[in-house]
Amino acid sequence: MKKRILSGMRPTGKLHIGHLKGALENWVKLQDEYDCFYMIADWHALTTEYESSKEIHNYSIEIVKFWIATGIDEKKSVIFRQSDVHQHAELHLVFSMFTPLGWLFRCPTYKEQLREIKERDLKTYGFLGYPVLQAADILIYKAERVPVGEDQVPHIELTREIARRFNYLYGKVFPEPKEILTPSARIPGIDGRKMSKSLNNCIYLDEEKNEIYKKVNNMITDPQRIRKTDKGHPDICTVFSYYKVFSPEILDKVRNECENAKIGCVECKKRLANILERVISPIREKKNKIKDEEVIEILKEGKKKASKIAEETLNEVKKAIFQ
Amino acid sequence: MKKRILSGMRPTGKLHIGHLKGALENWVKLQDEYDCFYMIADWHALTTEYESSKEIHNYSIEIVKFWIATGIDEKKSVIFRQSDVHQHAELHLVFSMFTPLGWLFRCPTYKEQLREIKERDLKTYGFLGYPVLQAADILIYKAERVPVGEDQVPHIELTREIARRFNYLYGKVFPEPKEILTPSARIPGIDGRKMSKSLNNCIYLDEEKNEIYKKVNNMITDPQRIRKTDKGHPDICTVFSYYKVFSPEILDKVRNECENAKIGCVECKKRLANILERVISPIREKKNKIKDEEVIEILKEGKKKASKIAEETLNEVKKAIFQ
Repeated sequence: MKKRILSGMRPTGKLHIGHLKGALENWVKLQDEYDCFYMIADWHALTTEYESSKEIHNYSIEIVKFWIATGIDEKKSVIFRQSDVHQHAELHLVFSMFTPLGWLFRCPTYKEQLREIKERDLKTYGFLGYPVLQAADILIYKAERVPVGEDQVPHIELTREIARRFNYLYGKVFPEPKEILTPSARIPGIDGRKMSKSLNNCIYLDEEKNEIYKKVNNMITDPQRIRKTDKGHPDICTVFSYYKVFSPEILDKVRNECENAKIGCVECKKRLANILERVISPIREKKNKIKDEEVIEILKEGKKKASKIAEETLNEVKKAIFQ
Repeated sequence: MKKRILSGMRPTGKLHIGHLKGALENWVKLQDEYDCFYMIADWHALTTEYESSKEIHNYSIEIVKFWIATGIDEKKSVIFRQSDVHQHAELHLVFSMFTPLGWLFRCPTYKEQLREIKERDLKTYGFLGYPVLQAADILIYKAERVPVGEDQVPHIELTREIARRFNYLYGKVFPEPKEILTPSARIPGIDGRKMSKSLNNCIYLDEEKNEIYKKVNNMITDPQRIRKTDKGHPDICTVFSYYKVFSPEILDKVRNECENAKIGCVECKKRLANILERVISPIREKKNKIKDEEVIEILKEGKKKASKIAEETLNEVKKAIFQ
């Protein structure tokens, strides 16, 4: 039997090329080898967006469209919304009972996010318990593998600790899931900083052609290369870091052209824009054709499939605890 | 329309005469004036009993029997089990998102219980969040009144704060519930200390007749009254404190007899035992006749009624947040 996978995204914005390289391409591949559960983490979105929650619903629909457009197949994988499957909240409540506060306060992501996100008040009960909910998300399906980025590894460790503690207290119900590390793609935003909605430096997966060209044209390059005849330093150039990800096969050529001033930045950017348009256009076109109603149908079907398994696990959990 | 009430008990032991005077007699009366929801708080039991959870299920059945035997009427009131209605866990999750940690750490009952209960590790996420779950229990039914003892008043205050914060963030959904203070009956255990299962000093509501006489006979009286001819001091006598609650109509007479050595402690205790037997015997007899299957049927019916209202509220909540 195939091993089960759980992964998810928070519906707090449109998806960009960082999501494609950092998660989605990997998710698509995993569909053949694993029994995949892909979750719209709308409760999780609420942990930080509780003051601007209205967009969560719309982004949930949007993101499913992006998933389908990039190759996530609702026939192969279960695509569902977290808040549609009430057993997540119930298992989260169960886990909360025996999860020591210390585990949560010591979690590196907790401290880091409190430090980083200053504009919202995150000193809430739910934000502290984020990893408890994540453990419930994973374990309600008894998922054994979780594809994540490096920053999420501490949460998977905590998930294992919670699984272990439950099994110790009430008898073995849960596996101890392992992470599948998604190689970090490190695609910077067009300004060279981390790609992020709030920095307004993203290239989205449904970006219009002329927007792609405009955005690539605005990318920060080597600031010391002023004239076309100046030699460039690709390793500090944002454009070059895109070639690394999207066109590794011509990387040596690009480096050579840049370092020897054989190509100007304008031309080099145009070539990159062409490459990006080739990547994005099929996604954009497919995505734009998907209707809201289709997504709602997919989520309905996903809810059914996910709920069935989640209910089985929860019954087992209640039995282990109370009987 | 009648106002709605929510109250509950944690299924962590059999019910004793303290429960009768401190809650149940009041609950029975409230049934006529209010639309009452009485909850077996089994998730709450887990916050402290997570290491000895097996008994929770049996005590849940037991306690419903006690409720019915003392006059809670499943035709008038909704009798249900917290874990049977998944919307409690979901609303708890929603509330967690915007409940500041400070509200919970500052809660007087939190500090007090950490201090008092030393034998179990209560530094868990769920124990800290106890009042958040309680707020969800109350507000999922939009209950406007909550009969509680004085010690629970801070939790009702917190419930109001959570309701207010939700209404402020997402629009008015919840009432701000008020407590109905149950006059504290202060029935000490037979050793004069607080009546408590762990101190083994309770008189249970299904106590056998000979046990009642034995327990009353073992009660601590005035230690300075050694011979029957010594004058007694009723105000420091455990037996007298029982008369206060169970026989206020003869209180002056009892005081006079004791202070003037007109009656011996043995005789005085026998009279009290008779009084208690008259209170307990109908409860005991009714309770012993109730079959487990009947309770299961009552809880099934209660689940149906409670779930219907809880689902309505949760839909309203999701709409307020996401749409």
